Amino acid sequence: MQRLVRALKGEVLDPPPVWLMRQAGRYLPEYRAVRAQAGGFLDLCYDPPLATEVTLQPIRRYGFDAAILFSDILVIPHALGRHLRFVENEGPKLEPLEGAADVARLDPEPMHARLAPVYEAVERIRGELDPDVALIGFAGAPWTLGCYMVEGQGSKDFAGTRLWAARDPELFGRLIRTLETSIVAYLERQIEAGADVVMLFDSWAGVLPADGFVRWCQEPLARITRALGARHPNVPVIVFPRGAGLNYADAARAIGSAGLALDTTVPVDWAAQTLPERPTLQGNLDPVALVAGGVALDAAVDRIRSAFRDRPHIFNLGHGVLQQTDPDNVARLVRRLREPHA
Amino acid sequence: MQRLVRALKGEVLDPPPVWLMRQAGRYLPEYRAVRAQAGGFLDLCYDPPLATEVTLQPIRRYGFDAAILFSDILVIPHALGRHLRFVENEGPKLEPLEGAADVARLDPEPMHARLAPVYEAVERIRGELDPDVALIGFAGAPWTLGCYMVEGQGSKDFAGTRLWAARDPELFGRLIRTLETSIVAYLERQIEAGADVVMLFDSWAGVLPADGFVRWCQEPLARITRALGARHPNVPVIVFPRGAGLNYADAARAIGSAGLALDTTVPVDWAAQTLPERPTLQGNLDPVALVAGGVALDAAVDRIRSAFRDRPHIFNLGHGVLQQTDPDNVARLVRRLREPHA
Repeated sequence: MQRLVRALKGEVLDPPPVWLMRQAGRYLPEYRAVRAQAGGFLDLCYDPPLATEVTLQPIRRYGFDAAILFSDILVIPHALGRHLRFVENEGPKLEPLEGAADVARLDPEPMHARLAPVYEAVERIRGELDPDVALIGFAGAPWTLGCYMVEGQGSKDFAGTRLWAARDPELFGRLIRTLETSIVAYLERQIEAGADVVMLFDSWAGVLPADGFVRWCQEPLARITRALGARHPNVPVIVFPRGAGLNYADAARAIGSAGLALDTTVPVDWAAQTLPERPTLQGNLDPVALVAGGVALDAAVDRIRSAFRDRPHIFNLGHGVLQQTDPDNVARLVRRLREPHA
Repeated sequence: MQRLVRALKGEVLDPPPVWLMRQAGRYLPEYRAVRAQAGGFLDLCYDPPLATEVTLQPIRRYGFDAAILFSDILVIPHALGRHLRFVENEGPKLEPLEGAADVARLDPEPMHARLAPVYEAVERIRGELDPDVALIGFAGAPWTLGCYMVEGQGSKDFAGTRLWAARDPELFGRLIRTLETSIVAYLERQIEAGADVVMLFDSWAGVLPADGFVRWCQEPLARITRALGARHPNVPVIVFPRGAGLNYADAARAIGSAGLALDTTVPVDWAAQTLPERPTLQGNLDPVALVAGGVALDAAVDRIRSAFRDRPHIFNLGHGVLQQTDPDNVARLVRRLREPHA
């Protein structure tokens, strides 16, 4: 069984399996070369051979225990019929949802046809990847997708989305349910195409107050995890409620996923001592430490590894690789994890 | 003694004293009228009669238990010689610090001369304010000021500042110490001019990993609190390490301030049950609930009040008043808190 899957099923492995969020990306010169060929960012996401190539690049370079499909969380709103474009240095621009009519008009029917290039990429990647390396499929979580769909772009606090949810929880709940259904269908297709593990990114969970966190992040993630588990009991789900903070402990218990990703702010000793034995914890090196490199990087790697030594753990960052990261520092991290320990 | 000060000294008051972060601001038509007269935002901060007027406006309208000086956290970097301007709809732009020479050049000497209009405003406000209403002076905390001084503007994650701190902690530590000294001197002058309470805003504490939180947020706040306490033992200090999340419990114990402000994400039951009896807790209604209004607002107010019923508490938001807030909703909040309870 793949080391990533073994860790997700509760095995304690030494060294822990390792992969990095945004391990395929701009910090790699070979990625920038492909990106230049592809045209826009979305063109790259929807081009199966090129998406396959950039997914595999970090595996060839570093020998990570898992590859993660190269794609974007916003392909679901796009496939549901919302206009999407990526503006260089500004990020995504989505046509904002205006109200109930727009929510009712979200159309899951043509979704799979639009997302066919993603499924094809998953198939190609799985075909080319070493069988011992796990392939992770992924989707954005309902709350985070809802945030972008309501505001149309990134925001510091997504106050507009929170306000919509507060003013019309019934309508916002319909949006969340539509997204849940779409996400489950999308991830099932990824699993059928060859994904060994799937991950749900709730990147903006941290802007929610406690009651909103339960309703709009924790419960939807639990429902999606249950729905996938009923159909694909052998495919582990990792959830990442980024910024959950004081809600991490309840989320660990309530969501029922095989894996829980910890963001950079979570103190590792607290997590190791407080969180239940399952789910398997993943994380949480500061991407800034990976940019800084040197002996401070080694020390940070050792600290995390040693905190989680006695429990199932997947080594990762607490957020994505930063663009200015020196690729040699990533090699140093992997070497540090895998070299025999004193 | 003023009700706010009594609560900060550990008294349980029913109803709790109430004020709101950013209670003077754009949501009030009378503020917008003064702002239009003032020219730029900084001109308003540095105009004692106008700053006095906007500070007092919400007190007249709502009868809050405290007024907070109308100013901005960035006046300290400005007074230390960094160029500052506010761009409409974009926020502050500071000349970014480039390295050691810029840090060495930060000059506390002319600081008080530059900040004289602020001290004059404090004196005027205290002179005009009902003696039973507390006047809160404030400053930005070192970490948050450092973030703006390094990046030159707002950022989602202040990765540049965190990277600087990781690469050269000695130099970054010098910047933090210079800011600590300046903040203490600035707040002492505000106290001498009439501030009854002072508050430290660490708005970007939430981007720090656990070890960085201790070093760059918690320890500087503790040192400032100690320095002020030694000189002004009767003036309570409130700290607001916004986004502290899982670090809130340690921060509550380690900083030693009279008050601790809770942000919107902190579950009130957790706080009431877990945090030590001192400091007095302040917060933490979601500003979005204040925009939404109605019976849901009443319920949210009641929930917070009832969670903290048996301990010293100051009612406030978990973040500043949003611009789109209906002033009537603020009146409703205050009425709800003060009406006799069943």
